[in-house]
Parts: sequence; C-alpha cells; structure tokens
Amino acid sequence: MTTSSAPSPRPRVVIIGCGFGGLEAARALRGAALDVTLIDKTNHHLFQPLLYQVATAGLSAPAIAAPIRHLFRQQPNVTTLLGEVTHIDVAARTVHLKDGPHPSAPLPYDHLIVAAGATHSYFGRDDWAPHAPGLKTLDDAFEIRRRILLAFEAAEKEADPTRRADWLNFVVVGAGPTGVEMAGTLAEIARHTLPGEFRHIDPASAKIILLEGGPRVLQSMPESLSQRAREQLEKLGVEVRLNARVTAIDSDGLMVESPSSAQPTSATSYQIKSKCIVWAAGVAASALGRQLAGATGCATDRAGRVVVAPDLSLPGHPEISVIGDLAAAKSHAPGQEPTPVPGVSPGAKQMGRATAANILRRLAGQATQPFRYRDYGNLATIGRNSAVVDLTSPTGPVRFSGYFAWLFWLFAHVYFLIGFRNRLVVLLDWAWAYWSFARYARVVTGIEGSAKSNGAKQSETAAPTRS
Amino acid sequence: MTTSSAPSPRPRVVIIGCGFGGLEAARALRGAALDVTLIDKTNHHLFQPLLYQVATAGLSAPAIAAPIRHLFRQQPNVTTLLGEVTHIDVAARTVHLKDGPHPSAPLPYDHLIVAAGATHSYFGRDDWAPHAPGLKTLDDAFEIRRRILLAFEAAEKEADPTRRADWLNFVVVGAGPTGVEMAGTLAEIARHTLPGEFRHIDPASAKIILLEGGPRVLQSMPESLSQRAREQLEKLGVEVRLNARVTAIDSDGLMVESPSSAQPTSATSYQIKSKCIVWAAGVAASALGRQLAGATGCATDRAGRVVVAPDLSLPGHPEISVIGDLAAAKSHAPGQEPTPVPGVSPGAKQMGRATAANILRRLAGQATQPFRYRDYGNLATIGRNSAVVDLTSPTGPVRFSGYFAWLFWLFAHVYFLIGFRNRLVVLLDWAWAYWSFARYARVVTGIEGSAKSNGAKQSETAAPTRS
Repeated sequence: MTTSSAPSPRPRVVIIGCGFGGLEAARALRGAALDVTLIDKTNHHLFQPLLYQVATAGLSAPAIAAPIRHLFRQQPNVTTLLGEVTHIDVAARTVHLKDGPHPSAPLPYDHLIVAAGATHSYFGRDDWAPHAPGLKTLDDAFEIRRRILLAFEAAEKEADPTRRADWLNFVVVGAGPTGVEMAGTLAEIARHTLPGEFRHIDPASAKIILLEGGPRVLQSMPESLSQRAREQLEKLGVEVRLNARVTAIDSDGLMVESPSSAQPTSATSYQIKSKCIVWAAGVAASALGRQLAGATGCATDRAGRVVVAPDLSLPGHPEISVIGDLAAAKSHAPGQEPTPVPGVSPGAKQMGRATAANILRRLAGQATQPFRYRDYGNLATIGRNSAVVDLTSPTGPVRFSGYFAWLFWLFAHVYFLIGFRNRLVVLLDWAWAYWSFARYARVVTGIEGSAKSNGAKQSETAAPTRS
Repeated sequence: MTTSSAPSPRPRVVIIGCGFGGLEAARALRGAALDVTLIDKTNHHLFQPLLYQVATAGLSAPAIAAPIRHLFRQQPNVTTLLGEVTHIDVAARTVHLKDGPHPSAPLPYDHLIVAAGATHSYFGRDDWAPHAPGLKTLDDAFEIRRRILLAFEAAEKEADPTRRADWLNFVVVGAGPTGVEMAGTLAEIARHTLPGEFRHIDPASAKIILLEGGPRVLQSMPESLSQRAREQLEKLGVEVRLNARVTAIDSDGLMVESPSSAQPTSATSYQIKSKCIVWAAGVAASALGRQLAGATGCATDRAGRVVVAPDLSLPGHPEISVIGDLAAAKSHAPGQEPTPVPGVSPGAKQMGRATAANILRRLAGQATQPFRYRDYGNLATIGRNSAVVDLTSPTGPVRFSGYFAWLFWLFAHVYFLIGFRNRLVVLLDWAWAYWSFARYARVVTGIEGSAKSNGAKQSETAAPTRS
C-alpha cells in the first residue's frame, strides 16, 4: 500500500470483500466525493450462483469471474487492493492486512463496510474437509471438478468390480440449492455427457446420492416446490435420502444415521462407500464477524453472523456496517414486524446499496434509514430442463416448475452475470452444451500433485476467514 | 487397467502421449482391425501453439484443451488411459504405468508409438526452475499467469519506488516463437489492457525485456523476417537484447553476460532485477527417449531425442516407432539428401499419420515407407496486429509481415484448433479482446498457497518425463 503523502480531505470508505454486497456498495458510491478502498483476497468478483457449473465442467472459470480492477476502471474513486484482512482495530479505525513481500501499513477508515461473507462449515468436524470439499471459491470448484472426473478415470482403470463400484458412488451432502444443483448436474454428466467415452465402465451406472438431514429438499422453498424438485431429481437418476444425518466421513466414504426404514438391513446407521463426496451442508460466517463482536460487544448468532442495527450498522458503531452473508440482518417494512433477510445474492446486493446510501446520508448530516428487503422470489435449478420458481407478486405467489422454470432460471442468471462479454459466453456455452450434451470445460490440471496435496489444500480452503 | 479376460486376436497398438503426434496416429488408425490404447498423463489434448494466450490471460484453459476421451468417443478401437508411463520393457513388449490407488498391470503391445514429447530444459540448472517457469502444460500457464498479474498487484501495494520498479520488470529468456509471443503479449497487457485500472502505478511503465543468446530473434525464420519481428517487438515496447547469455537466476533476478556495448557501465556481465521471469529457452526430450536408447542401443542426440530409422521406427525394433518432439527424424524426399524435420506441430502430425500408415503396411505384410516431411511454411505472431509469415510455394518462398500476417496467423491457428466449439469460442474471445483491448481470463487462483509451493511445484513440472 502506498502511504498517502498528505491527509486526504475526503472521507475514506474501506470495503472488505468484493462479493455481491461489497461490489454493489462500491458501485453505489460512484461519483461521491469520497475515496473507496475495496479489499478482496482474490483478484476477481465471483458469480457464485454459477460456481457449481465450473465444478461440473460446464463453464470455464473466467466465464463467471470478472477481474475486480477491470470492473472499477471507470470509477476513479475506487482503489482495488488484493489482500487478506487479518483484523480490524475498531478503536484506531484501521484495517490490518496480512503482510505480503513487504509489510503493509494499516489502512485507516472513516467508514467501514464489512462484507467478508461466509465459508462452508463442518459443524466442528474440520477433519472431514479433505474428504468432502465444499464449494465457495474457484479453487474449491477446480478441486471438485478434478475429483469427479478422476473418479470416472479411476473406475475405468479398476479391475476389481467392488472397488470399481465404489469409484462410481457420488455423494452430495446437503440438499439446499447448491446440493440440488450439484446432484442434478452429476446425474446429467453420468447419464448424458460421458456415455460412449469409456471402454470398461458404463458411466450411466454411477450412483448419485443426495443426503439431507431435514425432511425435504430446498427447505427455503414452499413445500409443493420441494416435492416437485425431489421428483425431478429422481427422474434425473438421483437417489434422494431425507432425514439422513452424516456422522462420520473418511477416505472410504461416510456413515449415515437415518430413522427411515429405507435401509432394512441396518435400521439406524449405515455406511456409504464413496471416493467423491461434495459438502453442501453447513455455512459459517467469516471469522471477522466474531472478531468484530469481541471488539465491540455486539452479538453474533449461531452461524457467527453479526447482529446488526436496523440500518445495517454495528450497534454503538455507526461508522461500521456489516452486510451480506456476514450479517444477521432484518428487513423493516413499514407497519410490519421485522423479518430475517435470507442469505441470497439479491439480499446482499440490496444491503450493499442501502449501506452506500446510508453512508451518503451520514456525510450529509441526515439520519440513516432502516434496511428493507424486497423479495422478488426464489429460484433453484435441478438439471437439464428442470428448475423450480417461486415468484413474489402483488397478487400472491407465482409458482411453477419444469422446462419453463428452467428457461426462466437460465435467463435470470445470465442477465445478472457481471459484464456483457460473460453473458454472451455463458449463453453460448449453454446453447452448445444443450444441443450437444457435451461439457467443454473438462480440463483437469495438477493431477500429479492432487493426491498428495488434498489434505493441505483443503485445510487451507476450509480456513474460515474470507475477505 | 482391466486385465483382458482372453488374449485379443487383434493387434494391440499402444500410443504414449496425446500431443499432436499421438493424436494424429490414433485418428489415422480409425476403422482399422486393431486395438489402440492411448495413454496420456493428462485428460486433455492441448493445443500448445496457443498456450501462451492462457498464460497471458487472453484465453481460458478449456478453449485450447479438449478432453481426449471425448475426441475418441466415436472411434471404438481407441481406449483412453489416464496414466504416467514409468518405463518400457522392450524385451517383454510391455508398458509400465505409475501405480494409482491400486497397482496397474503392465500393458502389452504388438506395436508401440512413443510420442511423449519434450519439456523445457534449464541446461542442467534445474535450480533456476522455481524462479523462471517454462511453458509446456496448463499448470505452467496458470503459474505464469499468476506471476504476471500478481506482479502488477504487488507493485500497486509497494511504497518504495525502487522495489516497485523491480516488480514491473518482466524478463523473457529465449526469443523463439514462444518467447517472442510472450514478450509481445506482455507488452500489450502493460500498454493496453491494464492502464486505468491501477491508482498508484502506471502499468505502461513496465519494462519487458526479451533476452536471446543468439544473434537474432526467431532463428528458424529467414533473416529478413527476424529483422521485421524485432522491429515489431520494439514498436510494441519490448526491449530486445541479443547475444545475451543468462548465467544465473535467483529470486532477485538474473545475471546476463553480453559481449555487446549496449551496457556501457559493465561491459560483459550485469544484473537485471525481476520478480517475473519466463523461461522460453531450452527444450529437452522426454526421459523415455534415453530410457529407450539404453534398452535398445539406439542413439539419442544432444537434446535427448531418439535417432530413428527412415520409417520412424527404432533401428532393430520395427515394432517401436518414435515420433514428434521426441524423435530426431529426417525427411526423405526422393532424389534429395535427407533433411532434419523441424520441431513444429505440422511435423508431429505428419509423423503420426506416417507411422499409422506404416503399421497398417506391416500388418498387411508390406514394406514400410520412409517419412517425408512436407513444409508448408512457418508462422510466428508477435502481438496485436503483428506477425511474420514464411510460406513455401512451388514458385519460391512467400514472405510477409504486419497486419495481414497477423490475420493469416490468427485464422490458421483457429482453423487447426481441435473441435468446432473451441474454434468458435476462441474466435469470439479474440474478436472481443481486439475491440475492447480487454483480456477476460484474468482469474488467478491459489493465491495463498502460491508463494510457498512454487519451489515444489516447479520442480515437479520440470521433471523430464512427459507422456
């Protein structure tokens, strides 16, 4: 960081994290007479709703990741900084970065927006991480892509039929949107993309098992749509096991506890052998949340999210806002009880814009306004031609599923992709994949190193701080 | 590998390596009554002539890498095997693979095609590898992309002007086609892509230095085109230093010996400080070449390439052919002295087809034919709008450079890309990059781990065996 030669007369806004919340906040400050520093641990803004497509070889990484600097090249009041925040000094109003080749000076702020997001959580069982990677970053997606494709390769080479079947068992833990997308797409790969390419195995014989601890898939959706989603998953060839609680994961597979009678041989606890497990179950807020709570005395919820004031600032610290997945925020509609804001990208984007507006109000000497979340609905895709849509409209909810829901989901996602070029490329990739059933991004790198480094790599990925 | 339950009545052809040579050989055996096993260390065929575009963030990896299985899904006599060949048992006629999770049985062959290619060589100075990665695999390309983009990021954070300038020194060693392309594209990035995106540095102030030990760039080209290429490089802002021999590389930069008077302060030896050095100088054949030579008594040349018989087989071993960059092959035109085949992709492809044809001749009891290389010319690109072209025609050579040479180069490369989809995507990417000056694949992953793992990673990459 270049040390400023003279104190800046303009207010300094520091934003930690360039996910949906941080990006929108920085954009909403365009043209304002202040200096924004946007810090992220990576050099790109990631369109997370399509990350599962990178993990399943449907899209290349650059199609869903835009260089942050490039996004802000026309906004001169934004300085982009690649770096990792180690802690926030609330008293001194400075942000401290992990040292690079040379020590960085602490970064002073007049207003701080903490949008550091969340990572996957193993409910205290971090030893599961090497065996069941989660999906939050591009590195995670590459690791999962590598495991999926190499499992088919290993099965092709395996002479022993039992061990071969183990290689073809794919397990997804957690039936939220990511788990459902992963399971549906895995089934599509096994049934449609790979057949014909192997000589010793039939990829279509692969088993895709989706484990969910709760009683239904897509629990944030209305029950009728959960039911439709489950039917569509099963039609694609996914085995859905509900009320199934994972009790252990190791290199051989997982142990599952289930009150259901679906497993007659073992009523409550059984093993699923698998070499490729994807973790889509738990989410934990960035460690910066608890650190802020320790420094300011504010509360965090069970997932480590910071309980914020109605205007998204920290109670007692109007100069600090917490937004996105790191915030336990409520929506304040006039004349109604506050309701929790769901952890979805429209929520994060709206919080980003609202916080930027409140900063401008504070600078103008006006009162800040409470955050109000506008819910336009909820989408989830399952696989080729299938999705569920739950739209909010003035005349009540509009719900549909199947092919038109899938088209709706597709265009909505492409529309919200950052940057015209990416939209075009993603649309073309999908048009091509749709007609050919091919998945073009089936490139696996680092094959030699992967077996050795999984442990180390995954423990790094599972580290909770993300800025 | 599944052990065959009964001895196959069909001849077994094993191909090691799916570069241009191995791919063409397998394709040319389409429809033949034999069983082909195609072994590669990676799961993709790589279009190496465009690898520098992945390294410089102009293309995504899947745009130039096609899954090998997918390429052969319609050719039932080809079995694809992901694996690394450890050695060839010439007496037993078996190929041994590195063990995966379970031991693989040796692979028997009736005819073997060794197309294991080459890797970069540091002329015995493998300790230079961590500081100056070469460009042969996608992993190499990602590593170089990471170093280039992170060097600009580090410069932006650096307060000390001298150290900041060091971060903005980029050195390419070797002015063959890859070195020239890398240097030209680096200059384009610094002058056209990045300006406006940084707040503390001017990316256009970056120095791009191209070091060449010989007296001119592109030594395989006619002298007049070398001269044009050098002029075009200098116009793009590349500093070309000829007759410059690298004597040491470490984490601070390199030591160069130069008889020229271009460096008045130090006549013969001087240091260039740099944090980002790309090695495009030496090439060494796969270690399988020397291993074969040891087992059969055949000769290798200085670069470790196997000296083959006129029909590309090993002297005394008609059942083994060596092709591509691993072969020191000669072209046998009727009535002319044999001439060496250049190490370019058309050479490898022609050798692949010729070897396949010779195998079919042998099986039919016919005599094999000597290889004849058809030289259609030589292309090299330098950067935006600039390239040099040297075509062979019946009426003598056709040589041109500049914008039309660049267009010619572009369409020739896109034409030879494997797979229609890739061609379309690459053309679109380039059309977009051309009009916008943007480079979309500026995604860097593994930032946290990169500093620590460079050493280990590069030594792995520099390991000479490549199959």
